[in-house]
Amino acid sequence: MNQLEKPRTAVDLRKVRINPNFWYPLAWSHEIGRGKVRGAVFAGEPIAIVRTQSGKVFALEDRCAHRQFPLSLGVVCGEHLQCGYHAWRYDEHGQITSIPYAGRDTALPPGVRFYPCREAYGTIFVFPGDPNLAERVPLPDLSLRDSPDYKPMYFSRQVNCHYSFMHENLMDMNHQFLHRRLMGRVKPELLNTSTGDGWVEAKYHFHHLGGRRHFGSDLLSIGGDSSEKTYDIMTIRTEYPYQTLTIAGADSDSPSVRLWSVYVPKDHAQRTNQSVGILMVRKPRIPGLIYLLWPLLRHFTESVFAEDRMAVEAEQRAYDELGGDRNYEVYPVTLAVRELLATRGLAPKPGSEV
Amino acid sequence: MNQLEKPRTAVDLRKVRINPNFWYPLAWSHEIGRGKVRGAVFAGEPIAIVRTQSGKVFALEDRCAHRQFPLSLGVVCGEHLQCGYHAWRYDEHGQITSIPYAGRDTALPPGVRFYPCREAYGTIFVFPGDPNLAERVPLPDLSLRDSPDYKPMYFSRQVNCHYSFMHENLMDMNHQFLHRRLMGRVKPELLNTSTGDGWVEAKYHFHHLGGRRHFGSDLLSIGGDSSEKTYDIMTIRTEYPYQTLTIAGADSDSPSVRLWSVYVPKDHAQRTNQSVGILMVRKPRIPGLIYLLWPLLRHFTESVFAEDRMAVEAEQRAYDELGGDRNYEVYPVTLAVRELLATRGLAPKPGSEV
Amino acid sequence: MNQLEKPRTAVDLRKVRINPNFWYPLAWSHEIGRGKVRGAVFAGEPIAIVRTQSGKVFALEDRCAHRQFPLSLGVVCGEHLQCGYHAWRYDEHGQITSIPYAGRDTALPPGVRFYPCREAYGTIFVFPGDPNLAERVPLPDLSLRDSPDYKPMYFSRQVNCHYSFMHENLMDMNHQFLHRRLMGRVKPELLNTSTGDGWVEAKYHFHHLGGRRHFGSDLLSIGGDSSEKTYDIMTIRTEYPYQTLTIAGADSDSPSVRLWSVYVPKDHAQRTNQSVGILMVRKPRIPGLIYLLWPLLRHFTESVFAEDRMAVEAEQRAYDELGGDRNYEVYPVTLAVRELLATRGLAPKPGSEV
Repeated sequence: MNQLEKPRTAVDLRKVRINPNFWYPLAWSHEIGRGKVRGAVFAGEPIAIVRTQSGKVFALEDRCAHRQFPLSLGVVCGEHLQCGYHAWRYDEHGQITSIPYAGRDTALPPGVRFYPCREAYGTIFVFPGDPNLAERVPLPDLSLRDSPDYKPMYFSRQVNCHYSFMHENLMDMNHQFLHRRLMGRVKPELLNTSTGDGWVEAKYHFHHLGGRRHFGSDLLSIGGDSSEKTYDIMTIRTEYPYQTLTIAGADSDSPSVRLWSVYVPKDHAQRTNQSVGILMVRKPRIPGLIYLLWPLLRHFTESVFAEDRMAVEAEQRAYDELGGDRNYEVYPVTLAVRELLATRGLAPKPGSEV
Repeated sequence: MNQLEKPRTAVDLRKVRINPNFWYPLAWSHEIGRGKVRGAVFAGEPIAIVRTQSGKVFALEDRCAHRQFPLSLGVVCGEHLQCGYHAWRYDEHGQITSIPYAGRDTALPPGVRFYPCREAYGTIFVFPGDPNLAERVPLPDLSLRDSPDYKPMYFSRQVNCHYSFMHENLMDMNHQFLHRRLMGRVKPELLNTSTGDGWVEAKYHFHHLGGRRHFGSDLLSIGGDSSEKTYDIMTIRTEYPYQTLTIAGADSDSPSVRLWSVYVPKDHAQRTNQSVGILMVRKPRIPGLIYLLWPLLRHFTESVFAEDRMAVEAEQRAYDELGGDRNYEVYPVTLAVRELLATRGLAPKPGSEV
Repeated sequence: MNQLEKPRTAVDLRKVRINPNFWYPLAWSHEIGRGKVRGAVFAGEPIAIVRTQSGKVFALEDRCAHRQFPLSLGVVCGEHLQCGYHAWRYDEHGQITSIPYAGRDTALPPGVRFYPCREAYGTIFVFPGDPNLAERVPLPDLSLRDSPDYKPMYFSRQVNCHYSFMHENLMDMNHQFLHRRLMGRVKPELLNTSTGDGWVEAKYHFHHLGGRRHFGSDLLSIGGDSSEKTYDIMTIRTEYPYQTLTIAGADSDSPSVRLWSVYVPKDHAQRTNQSVGILMVRKPRIPGLIYLLWPLLRHFTESVFAEDRMAVEAEQRAYDELGGDRNYEVYPVTLAVRELLATRGLAPKPGSEV
C-alpha cells in the first residue's frame, strides 16, 4: 500500500479541470428523436446535439456563427441544422451550407466547432477534447447494460460541486455513517486497495451492527446480513474519468449490482457537475420480480443519492467560503484517488489559483 | 449603398452607453395621479417622478440628500416632496426647503439633482443628460398617437440585453424566420436602404410562401397576401435613439400601422433595458371594429415580442459568456445601424473594456 | 453638547467590523434541547452550538477538520459531538477524540476552534473574539426579563444592512415620520443627550399632534396622549455593542417598556445582520390582561419593525449602488453614535476600502 502514500501534488485539486479527451454522456438516446435537436453543456461549452431525419447523430457548438443564438433552438432540415433566428444552415461538420438571403457570390463565413459523437448503451457520448484523438479513445464498457440478465436504472442530476468531491465521496466507504438512517449501523471493512495506470480500486466488506434500515439496502446486498451465506464484496473503482461500484459475492462471477457513473462538469469553473449514472441490477430468479421491486429500489437509491449530494455540496460551499481546500485527509484510498484526479486532469487555468 | 460598408469602428458596441441628451419616456401619464410620486430608472440612476397637487410634473434624483432613502417612497405636500424617512422637504428643483427638526439658524444642506421633464402623448419624458441642452432637443414626433384615425397600444417590458441588440433585431427583417410559427413562411425582400445624419432606414416587402399564420399577422398587413391588391411596404428606421416600424401601402399617405419604440437602459452597465413602445393602429372603416380586433392584435404583438425577447436575451447571454462580441455580421443594414449606435452613443467607461 | 460635534473619523463606517470581544446572542435556549446541535453564524464564521446529554452547552467552529462538513449536521453522543459524514468525534474544546476507522497508532489531527459560551435570560451567548478575554467581559444586563412584573417578547430577524444603520435608525427619533401610518402625527422633542465611555444616550418626549394611530402605539405609551397624566420619556441608549429603548414616566423608577437589542453581523462583509431583541413589557395591574393584549402588541411591534427594515435596507442598497457613504448628517445624536461605532469597532479589512 506504499504507493498510496506518496506525497500529494501541490495543485489545488478543486481547480483541476477534467480531461476532455474522453467520451462523456451528454444525453440519453430516447431524449432526441429523429429531426430533433437538444442543448447540452460540457464545462461551460454549450453543445447542440442533433438527430437528423435519417437518424444520424451529430454535435455542434451551440452558438450560431452569425449572432451566437443557440443552435439547439433551431430546426432540423433533412441532414442539416438551421438556426432558428435568421435561418443560417449547417452540416454535421459545423460548416455553413447556406444563408437564405445572401447573394450567390457571398463568401460563406466560417462555421462552428463540431464534436465527435457516438451512440451506444442507449446513451449519446460526446468527445469534447481534440477530435483527432477521438478514434483512439474507447467508449466505457457498459456491456452489462445490454445483458438480458440485468435491468438498467438511469440517473442524471445536477450536483453543485467539483467532480472530485464525487469520486472521493464514493471511494471512502466510511461515509456510510452519512447514510445511517437508511442503512442502519454498518461497519465497513477495507479488504484491499490497489492502483494502476489510470485507476484506483478499493474493496470493502460491510458488517451490519444492527439498527433499522431501508428495505432497498437489502435489495442491493449492502451490509450483508449475518444470516447471509454469501460473503459480499463491494468494489469501488475510479478508472479515469469514470467510476464504478460493484457488489458481488466473493465466489461469484456476475455481480448482483454495478453502478457506472461519471460527473460531467457543467460550468467553466467546474464547480457544478451533472452526475450521470447507470445502475445495472441483476434480475432475481423469479421472473418479473424485478419490476415489483423496481420502485423500492429507485426510492432507496434516490434517498442515498440525496444524502450524498447534500454532503458534497456542503463541501463545495466550505471550499468557496474558505477560499481553498482545507481537507485534512488521513485515508489512503482517498489520497490515492485525489492523486489520480490531480495528475490525469488539466492544470488549473492560470490566474484561477487562490 | 457604399456608405453602409465602411469599416466598423473598433469599439465594443455592447459597452457603448446610450446618449443621455435625449428625451426618454420613463412613465405613462396615467400612472402618476395628482399628489403621487413614482420611482423610475435610467441607466442605473434612480429617478423620482412627482405630480404635485396642482398637476405639475417634476423629476428628482431618487435618493434623499440626508440618508439616500428613496424619495419615491415619500409624500407629496402641495407643490413639494417630503422624504418618507425624516421628512426633509424638496422643491421641484431638488432644493431642500425645510428640515422639520432643524433649528432656525441651521444652514440647509445642498439638495438633489433635478431632471428636465415634459409631458406629451400620454407619456412623461425625462431628459437625463445635461439640463442646459434640454430646451434645444425636441420630443419625438408621436402625432399619430393623438389622431382620431388611430388607436394606440402601449408596451413597456424589461428585456435583459443591451439596447443595441433591440435595434439590430428589428432592422434585419430576415429574422422573420424566428416568427415562423406566428407568421408562416415569409420571404422578406429588401427594397432599399438609406442613411443620413443620425438615422438609418430600410424598406422591405414580404412575400408569403404559405404555411399557417396567426390572424394578427393579417391585421397588421405583414406578409401581404398574394390576393392582396395593395403592395405593402414596411419601413424600419432608427432615428437615434428611437426606432420606428411603419407599414403602408406603396401608394398610400397614411400608414396602416406605426410602432414607435425606445430601449431605455436600466442598469449602469446597460445590459438591461426597458423596451417602451407605442403601436399606433389605423382604425378600420367599420366603426367600432377596432375594439373587437384589439385583444387579438394585443395577443399577436405580445407573442411576437416574446420571441424577439427570447432571441435578444440569448444574444446577451452569449456575449456575457464569451466575454465579448463575436457577431459575424454580413447584412449591410445591420452594419449600418451598428455604426450609427456606436458613433452616437457615449464611449464605454474606461476600465469596462474587455 | 459640544462633545457630540467633534469631527467624524475619516473611516467608512459601513465597513467597520463589529468588535467580536463581546457576548452575542446566537440562539434562544429553548431552540436547542438536550442532545441537539444547531448551526449559527457570526460575521461569516459558522458556529455549531451543542447541548450535551447532560445539558451543558458548548460551541465549535461549524466545519469538521476532516472535510469541512458542517458539524451542526452531526450527532450528539453523550458529552461529545460526532460529525455526520465520517463520524469523527469532538469534545467541548474542539479536540478530536476519535476517528472510528483510524488505526490505534494514528496520530489524531488537530481539531477545530471552540467559542466560549454562556446561557442566561433564556438566551445562549457566544463570545466570538479572543477566548482569553471572555471571562472579563460581562453579559448584558437583562434582569427585567426575569422579573415577575415583566413579560418578554423575543425578536430575531435577518435585516440586509450593516449593523450601524440599525443603531442610527433608532437613535434618531425624527424617523417617527416613517411610522406615520402606525403612530399618527408625532413630534419628537429631544430633551437631552449625553455620552460616556462606550455609550451614547438620547432622551425624548413625544407630542401627539393628531391623526389615527395603531392601538399598539398607546400600549407602549409612545406619543403620550394629551390627556395623559404621566410625562413619559423615551431613552435610547447605545452601549456598545447593544442598544436599549426604555419608556418610563418622568417620576417613575420602573419603565413601562424596555427593548434590548443587538445586530449580529451574518456575512463576512457585515452587510447583513440578525437583529435580535427582547422587549420587556411591564404587566398591567389587571392580572392576565397582558395575555389579552399580547397579540396586538406583537402585531404593532412587527409592523413598526417592518417599516424600519424597509428603510435601513434601502440605505444599504443606496450605499452599495453609490459605492460609498453619502450621508449628510446634521443631527448631533446620530453623529455621536456614528463616532462611537467607528471607534469601538474594528477597522475595515485592508483592501475593502472603496
